[in-house]
Amino acid sequence: MAHSIIFDTDPGVDDAQAIAIALRHPDIDLVGMTTTFGNVDVETATHNALLLGEVAGKPVPVAQGAAAPMVKPRHPAPAHIHGDNGLGNIDLPDVQGKADARSAAQFIVDTVNARPGEITLVAVGPLGNLAAALQIDPGITARVKGVVVMGGSIREGGNVTPVAEANIFNDAHAASRVLSADWPLTLVGLDVTHRCVLTPAHMARIEAGQGELGRLLAGSYAFYREFYRQALGIDGCCPHDSLALAWLVRPELFTTQRGHLSVVTDGLAEGQTLFAPAGRAFIQKRWSTSPEMDVCLGVDGDAVSDWIADTLA
Amino acid sequence: MAHSIIFDTDPGVDDAQAIAIALRHPDIDLVGMTTTFGNVDVETATHNALLLGEVAGKPVPVAQGAAAPMVKPRHPAPAHIHGDNGLGNIDLPDVQGKADARSAAQFIVDTVNARPGEITLVAVGPLGNLAAALQIDPGITARVKGVVVMGGSIREGGNVTPVAEANIFNDAHAASRVLSADWPLTLVGLDVTHRCVLTPAHMARIEAGQGELGRLLAGSYAFYREFYRQALGIDGCCPHDSLALAWLVRPELFTTQRGHLSVVTDGLAEGQTLFAPAGRAFIQKRWSTSPEMDVCLGVDGDAVSDWIADTLA
Repeated sequence: MAHSIIFDTDPGVDDAQAIAIALRHPDIDLVGMTTTFGNVDVETATHNALLLGEVAGKPVPVAQGAAAPMVKPRHPAPAHIHGDNGLGNIDLPDVQGKADARSAAQFIVDTVNARPGEITLVAVGPLGNLAAALQIDPGITARVKGVVVMGGSIREGGNVTPVAEANIFNDAHAASRVLSADWPLTLVGLDVTHRCVLTPAHMARIEAGQGELGRLLAGSYAFYREFYRQALGIDGCCPHDSLALAWLVRPELFTTQRGHLSVVTDGLAEGQTLFAPAGRAFIQKRWSTSPEMDVCLGVDGDAVSDWIADTLA
Repeated sequence: MAHSIIFDTDPGVDDAQAIAIALRHPDIDLVGMTTTFGNVDVETATHNALLLGEVAGKPVPVAQGAAAPMVKPRHPAPAHIHGDNGLGNIDLPDVQGKADARSAAQFIVDTVNARPGEITLVAVGPLGNLAAALQIDPGITARVKGVVVMGGSIREGGNVTPVAEANIFNDAHAASRVLSADWPLTLVGLDVTHRCVLTPAHMARIEAGQGELGRLLAGSYAFYREFYRQALGIDGCCPHDSLALAWLVRPELFTTQRGHLSVVTDGLAEGQTLFAPAGRAFIQKRWSTSPEMDVCLGVDGDAVSDWIADTLA
């Protein structure tokens, strides 16, 4: 049975790969995309989301969302990772369509309420749109089918600070709201995305298999790959956002643990996700009061990389 | 060549094991002990430090130190782990000697300055005494031979909060001062102490080999073991504090990484140690401004457990 999803995204090179999967995989029904600042500004994110649907020949509704964090000033977009245009500074075709008139949060609320129990929210950027949707209609917690968040790090350390992952760091207040809401959520963080490398061989298969979309994915990958080579010394890229879809379609490739999540909003550990395993007693109860979630802590990274390439080849 | 050390301690069951090692190992010259609140109140810590030297037939100077954290109120002592008397509530003989007239911090400063380049500070409790010594005489940073701190957690998660280790959590402000001072420091945290289990078979060898001291170590171990069985489901105990001495005498059993340490003093992550690997760029420089330290991230835990038993058998 196909998973009907809203993909909340800030494309972004690895977002583009995941969007291609969401458009192509037979078990995924991409109902719409909602956009946020993050890897790029929100206007660029909306442009790229529209573009990817059109290039794939499957335009889907795109609703624009958060332009900045809920509380704090915005950090500069990481142009050295995703390029100024979010897709590795490659030349892009013109976009034909335009965004839905509604905000991302309203689109989420309307769609979830129109199909109770059917929609899974897959969020792979800062979490302002999901937080705003909860603010508009807290009742969606009971009507979503599920929530999958690519973000955070439990044991792996961070990628923008020693302990914080970029999506959570970029709007820690929104993340705190979303990760402590009473809905069935899975966190897919650096603990698993760093175990997974999409190699040039994988990307060659994708480029050959996807026509114009493949050209776009391979071109942006080349730019992103250079960042990984210089910063981390690996040849290939972690396909972070695709892991959220891999979890949805191939959960047997992951190991998870149940527990409570909380998010640090200030100080040296700002943006860190804290994980209190279910049933584990700590010196105070403050880390164990939010609802239990599933947290991905292990993955067969090679199998996920192959699944990505197989899906798009 | 023997290591001349001051052992800063809050005994404590695993402290007692480490003190026995410091008193017995031919490569360690225990110049004195300084005491702090932590596993017990500071008066009990001083009593137990004096007692252990006397029972071993090698009384050493003991100077009493911090009774509470530098800034915040004290958390209750964990009597369910170490017993009300710090040694598993076993019957203890009377103490004959008494503490040095000086404070722990003054004892540290005097001893280090009297023997420049010769003294290693091995701290296995909350770090108020070392912080106070730095406050009395910042110049000791250039005159210690080294500093070894049992505390913190980089990738392992915490033992009193999801991210904080007890010694650092118990006085995060002191830890922040000590871990960012410009002296040659090694952090020996849960990343390695949780890899090491002292089994009942190890303790049987220690009990047989140490006479009255062995009775005391085995009796307190039995209480501590019950905590590990109930809370963590393992049969045996992590000999946390002994790892600091193992690092000193058998560094080849450890793997370390260089980098900058900082400590969270407030909020959900209070007491967490943050580690910024040397040369790694993050979104801001704030985590990479303190001097580089050595951080233990791996260990041959079985070899350390055997080393402890061999030392005391």
